[in-house]
Amino acid sequence: LTAAFAFANLAPMMRTVKDLADLVGGEVRGDGSLEIVGASPAGEGGRGQISFVDDPRHLPRALKGAASCLVLAEGMDPGPVTAIVVAQPKLAFARMLAELYPPEPEPAGTHESAVVDVTARLGSEVHVGPHAVIAAGAVIGDRVSVGAGATIGRGVQVGDDSVLFSRVVLYPGTVLGKRVRVHAGAVLGSDGFGYVSHQQGHDKFPQVGGLEVGDDVEIGANTTVDRGALGSTRIGAGTKIDNLVQIAHNVQIGARCLISAQTGIAGSSVVEDGVILAGQVGIADHVRIKQGAIVGAQGGVPTGKIIREGRLVWGTPARLLSEFKLEYAHLRRLPKLAQRVEALEQRLAPDEEPGEDE
Amino acid sequence: LTAAFAFANLAPMMRTVKDLADLVGGEVRGDGSLEIVGASPAGEGGRGQISFVDDPRHLPRALKGAASCLVLAEGMDPGPVTAIVVAQPKLAFARMLAELYPPEPEPAGTHESAVVDVTARLGSEVHVGPHAVIAAGAVIGDRVSVGAGATIGRGVQVGDDSVLFSRVVLYPGTVLGKRVRVHAGAVLGSDGFGYVSHQQGHDKFPQVGGLEVGDDVEIGANTTVDRGALGSTRIGAGTKIDNLVQIAHNVQIGARCLISAQTGIAGSSVVEDGVILAGQVGIADHVRIKQGAIVGAQGGVPTGKIIREGRLVWGTPARLLSEFKLEYAHLRRLPKLAQRVEALEQRLAPDEEPGEDE
Amino acid sequence: LTAAFAFANLAPMMRTVKDLADLVGGEVRGDGSLEIVGASPAGEGGRGQISFVDDPRHLPRALKGAASCLVLAEGMDPGPVTAIVVAQPKLAFARMLAELYPPEPEPAGTHESAVVDVTARLGSEVHVGPHAVIAAGAVIGDRVSVGAGATIGRGVQVGDDSVLFSRVVLYPGTVLGKRVRVHAGAVLGSDGFGYVSHQQGHDKFPQVGGLEVGDDVEIGANTTVDRGALGSTRIGAGTKIDNLVQIAHNVQIGARCLISAQTGIAGSSVVEDGVILAGQVGIADHVRIKQGAIVGAQGGVPTGKIIREGRLVWGTPARLLSEFKLEYAHLRRLPKLAQRVEALEQRLAPDEEPGEDE
Repeated sequence: LTAAFAFANLAPMMRTVKDLADLVGGEVRGDGSLEIVGASPAGEGGRGQISFVDDPRHLPRALKGAASCLVLAEGMDPGPVTAIVVAQPKLAFARMLAELYPPEPEPAGTHESAVVDVTARLGSEVHVGPHAVIAAGAVIGDRVSVGAGATIGRGVQVGDDSVLFSRVVLYPGTVLGKRVRVHAGAVLGSDGFGYVSHQQGHDKFPQVGGLEVGDDVEIGANTTVDRGALGSTRIGAGTKIDNLVQIAHNVQIGARCLISAQTGIAGSSVVEDGVILAGQVGIADHVRIKQGAIVGAQGGVPTGKIIREGRLVWGTPARLLSEFKLEYAHLRRLPKLAQRVEALEQRLAPDEEPGEDE
Repeated sequence: LTAAFAFANLAPMMRTVKDLADLVGGEVRGDGSLEIVGASPAGEGGRGQISFVDDPRHLPRALKGAASCLVLAEGMDPGPVTAIVVAQPKLAFARMLAELYPPEPEPAGTHESAVVDVTARLGSEVHVGPHAVIAAGAVIGDRVSVGAGATIGRGVQVGDDSVLFSRVVLYPGTVLGKRVRVHAGAVLGSDGFGYVSHQQGHDKFPQVGGLEVGDDVEIGANTTVDRGALGSTRIGAGTKIDNLVQIAHNVQIGARCLISAQTGIAGSSVVEDGVILAGQVGIADHVRIKQGAIVGAQGGVPTGKIIREGRLVWGTPARLLSEFKLEYAHLRRLPKLAQRVEALEQRLAPDEEPGEDE
Repeated sequence: LTAAFAFANLAPMMRTVKDLADLVGGEVRGDGSLEIVGASPAGEGGRGQISFVDDPRHLPRALKGAASCLVLAEGMDPGPVTAIVVAQPKLAFARMLAELYPPEPEPAGTHESAVVDVTARLGSEVHVGPHAVIAAGAVIGDRVSVGAGATIGRGVQVGDDSVLFSRVVLYPGTVLGKRVRVHAGAVLGSDGFGYVSHQQGHDKFPQVGGLEVGDDVEIGANTTVDRGALGSTRIGAGTKIDNLVQIAHNVQIGARCLISAQTGIAGSSVVEDGVILAGQVGIADHVRIKQGAIVGAQGGVPTGKIIREGRLVWGTPARLLSEFKLEYAHLRRLPKLAQRVEALEQRLAPDEEPGEDE
């Protein structure tokens, strides 16, 4: 019996082409008995390896490699190379990877160097790594893996099958759903940045709210998520958050969002379901990003703004991508436009001073 | 006897409306005997809860909630709801929060798993959590709380009543004032990014300076502050720093500044008293941000620039907000302006080729 | 016998001016017998201290200080102050610093609180600090220093003379070269941000690749570097990376690059040898930054772009600095240009309505 699967086993298993095709309901073209012992990027594979091609434009590169098998969509021609044909090559390939590189179980049990309060409740088959700390009143679900040196504060709840990697810190009262993965160094439930400013300085506005993280959320390394000031910060089920992201107090994030590295979301903003925030995006406070909207990399959404459903925006302040691009194209031509205006001025007033351009 | 108060107790105490009004010198309107057992955001509270309203525009939303009591400024009408009227509702409310959710003391004493060098000096009532490490020559003040797994390097000084949360790392020689709070995962006193570049690569410029942090500073989770190369990096008293901020070697930060998440300040820059840097701001090296100036979110201040006292700037390169806005408004109209220039060209030269617009 | 030198000793040694001049092959001007017991920034030093001046414009400031000795280039006049004249003052000064503030050795040996798997192989004179964890199959070179609370995963390799500061986390399979320095809180080899999205959400694309870090690389505090999805993420020899940087899966970084704080590089991008990325730069996925190119602070390079050899670019989207500056100068004058166009319209059509400008 084992705890949640923390790491992929980097020493791959052997499977035949047919095994892998059967796994994903794919069709073998060529030799199904070939043995596959690893996976590699298209064009970089060698004998015994499998690659996938999602886009027909990448097929020539893939065919230049020496991989034994390619995973392709219907209509791509693998030539003499053995192939597995499926409707969704990338999805199928992801499943094959989980078969070839099965997750490595951490052993159930609590390492002797871990410090677990007597009032903490641990489910069955829980792994608690060396030097982990679990404080009073914490409730840890079944098959949870608590990495080396992770700190779980008072009254924290962690749902079944969740994985906390090394050095994760959960402040008191944080609540995680099931199958949540939190990468090394992430800090969840820290105090929000709230002060009452006056002549003499800034008094702390006590941060007494909570943090609720839904099922199937993944949170990247060294990311920080603050607790609510009052009420809770929330992250919806199935949302994936990259490394070094900052989520401030009382932010409400919906389900199935993708939030890329180094993005920051300021206090009380709302990010609805299915939103995509690219890298280094900045969302100011009290913003609402509506369902399915996308903010391009480094885009900035000012305080109080609403981005409508499904909109694709870029720039700071963020605006429709199409408008950004049009303005940008004109900006690039602006030096020339200024010359044209000057020429017009000279033609209109040949005897006068040319237009002041400084 | 207890160490510094690390966390707010998330299980609130009971207080009557009159208790809370007396605490802040406020005036009760309505039933002072009502029992308050929690606080919530305006409009979200239920029976037994208290909320505050700072801005009359938010009063209608607050009145839609079911909170038992509202904290208001003079001149706001709570209708039938019990209220406490004070001059500064947010400040008063912050004090009530500290009363309702009193900070939870960490027990004084050193956990048996902590590693404390025999030459380290600990004050009275110090808390040293599990797996914390305190190196030779460190001097820890009275009532300091050292969180689980925090590492305090050689010769570090930590002033009275300071709180270091889990996994904080203080490099050797770092000096913290009194009542400093450092959130989980922050790294203080790491080497600055200093090299001497030549044909064969980059030689390390030894980073032998210090880091001095004033009284009442708060530093956010996973923030990094480098030691000086020579001389010291300094953070003035009462300054508050959010999560994932980067402060480079030899930066000098004044008193009572507010520095929001993911902001970065490069080497040797000076940030004077009372400056506000919004989120994701970038300050290049050898910049001076003078007293009380504000840099808007994602703004970038180039190398060597000076931002004058009290100025409000935005954009990259940062310029006066009013100028940024004016330019931006014109940028939005630029495609149309180009059309107008083309129209002028056509009217002036109907028989010639129209102006080249590429 | 000692492990790698983790920290500079902040209590400097005494050396005479002649000792220091001999160390770097410099020429003494003045009193070579003066005793030097510390170093300070130009203009801030006192008696017994040494400073350096790299740029003649800084000489007057340096001469205002009370330092006992200045390190200068030929042709700078120190007046009555003792000086050491060398061809490259900063490089010479860096070597003097290493002499005055010699790195402090961590004692060889494994702290009793560390947890080291029996199958891990440690070289000679290795330091393993308190609460460090070294997992099965790890191979640690000679004279490596593993800081307090660092976690080294299964099968990790760390080359000779490398230094891992406190709380560093190396995920399984990570490979570090020789003389690599990784600052506190950095996380290397975490899962990349890879998912296969479909109607119901985002399936994890297993991240089964590796991370290879070359010799003489330095990595800043709380920086994150992801393992490859398939294949490896790579960082070339001699590259220096600042704090809070994010490097995504399958990024390929060349040798001798300088990557400043809070910069992010997205999946599969290539950064060739000798590239400089300033602070808060964003490199999108599948970008190539060719040899010796420089991206200015906060610059953003969009997906798939190529920046040519030696180019200096700025802005988002990044373009040649010269073009950025020209466009920016015109943007600043745009409100005035719009007025000039309006004036032209009025002159051309005095009886008609003026051009619509909204």
